[in-house]
Amino acid sequence: MQERLAEVAAGVAAHLDHVLAPFGTGELAQAMRYATEGGKRLRAYLVIEGARLHGVPAEQAIWPATAIEALHAYSLVHDDMPCMDDDDLRRGRPTVHRKWDEATAVLVGDALQSLAFECVADPRAGSGEVRAELCLGLARAAGGQGMVLGQALDIAAETAGTPLSLDEITTLQAGKTGALIIWSGIAGAVMAGADPAPLTRYAQAVGLAFQIADDILDVEGCAEETGKAVGKDAAAGKATFVSHLGLAGAKSRASALIDEAIAALDIYGEDGDDLRALARFVIARSS
Amino acid sequence: MQERLAEVAAGVAAHLDHVLAPFGTGELAQAMRYATEGGKRLRAYLVIEGARLHGVPAEQAIWPATAIEALHAYSLVHDDMPCMDDDDLRRGRPTVHRKWDEATAVLVGDALQSLAFECVADPRAGSGEVRAELCLGLARAAGGQGMVLGQALDIAAETAGTPLSLDEITTLQAGKTGALIIWSGIAGAVMAGADPAPLTRYAQAVGLAFQIADDILDVEGCAEETGKAVGKDAAAGKATFVSHLGLAGAKSRASALIDEAIAALDIYGEDGDDLRALARFVIARSS
Repeated sequence: MQERLAEVAAGVAAHLDHVLAPFGTGELAQAMRYATEGGKRLRAYLVIEGARLHGVPAEQAIWPATAIEALHAYSLVHDDMPCMDDDDLRRGRPTVHRKWDEATAVLVGDALQSLAFECVADPRAGSGEVRAELCLGLARAAGGQGMVLGQALDIAAETAGTPLSLDEITTLQAGKTGALIIWSGIAGAVMAGADPAPLTRYAQAVGLAFQIADDILDVEGCAEETGKAVGKDAAAGKATFVSHLGLAGAKSRASALIDEAIAALDIYGEDGDDLRALARFVIARSS
Repeated sequence: MQERLAEVAAGVAAHLDHVLAPFGTGELAQAMRYATEGGKRLRAYLVIEGARLHGVPAEQAIWPATAIEALHAYSLVHDDMPCMDDDDLRRGRPTVHRKWDEATAVLVGDALQSLAFECVADPRAGSGEVRAELCLGLARAAGGQGMVLGQALDIAAETAGTPLSLDEITTLQAGKTGALIIWSGIAGAVMAGADPAPLTRYAQAVGLAFQIADDILDVEGCAEETGKAVGKDAAAGKATFVSHLGLAGAKSRASALIDEAIAALDIYGEDGDDLRALARFVIARSS
């Protein structure tokens, strides 16, 4: 699986180069490239594997795979800004607003969001119906009822200073990271006109496990391996899956979710092995 | 024309209410609504009129018309932020980051951009092909080769402190405001599968005239009427169409562009009268 993940990462990096080429070599284009470099490319992997499971050609699937990584990169750039999470380090390097400035960070994020929609709408991504449906799903998952809503709830909770309940954290994460992970998981089924229900269940469980694992890494990880600041949640007195469930409880919850995710793939037989491996990787990773 | 513009503005406001209803009544949704209120709705008007000229039903055209106003609102919210233009006043009211805070301004802009793509991709906007093409065009016009590139060039020029040449200003404005005005102008033709060339010429000329008129208003207008700060360009020693051409020269250039725009509508006969009136309005307006 690690090998396949590395392949997908290389394919997405090459395709990002390709779609960013027309943007030229100005400061904005440079910062856009910088922001999209690195990362595990788990979301792209979900798209590519989901597409493979449904017989969608790789040269079509690369478009939504690249789109979701551009969109993810945009969310990180804005999330790292001083008025948001105020982070100096991302993927082991200075954040965009540290390396450039805040105006560049705003614009890079904005342009990467547009780029994501440019990618899903590209004629090479499939029929008009497919591209329009991908676009609609991406817009909903990214926007004020999905990711951005999750971020707003996150900031509101921090400002209020009242720790969130476990249910509230689960709702928040369903928006903040879950919606786009589900979109990634089902993109291939959408492209093939197949039933997205099994991959929805899979991605929902993997997405939540991923977030629990992130909270665990914030406690157990080190900045060198994760490439970002750690221990921030506890220092801020923030409620997390770990603060609610304890370290052991959080690990066992994540593990149960991975079992759920793997079971959801039964219908795919051994064709689903790479996605099963990904599910296991999500809670075993150190970054 | 003013009456038709008021009708369109009311229609777009109602449709924005409709598409924002599922976002609920939280702080984010409130700020999204606030950011989309007011404005002249010139871009929506271009969409609606272009659609009418090509026999596209109004209930389809309202989707891209609402999309462009959501996208325009996003660009204003981010543009007004302290790290960008640092404006306190917009459409006669406090800017989003003044009424709320910077984090809210980032998130509201982000969510409104997503909302724009949600609107063009809505199944009620037309066939899959049409929606995908609208989405692709909007993404290109908005992104790092369109509006955001124009904004980045604008900021870079301000930082460098070297006044731009007339050609450079024209290029900058073609990205910053021109690309989305052209998208608005041709959306109806795209929806009908008609030749977008005449409306491209029209919108290109109107877009540039609009920007020249904006520069003139910054010199001649008053904050009460324009609803934003005036005299900023001269105070900042910024190169504008007025600083290059003089007030009379800028007015005569804008006027020539309007003649060009009106001539581009010949093919539509008197059906194009409302768009002709809009072109004249663009340089006659006081806000």
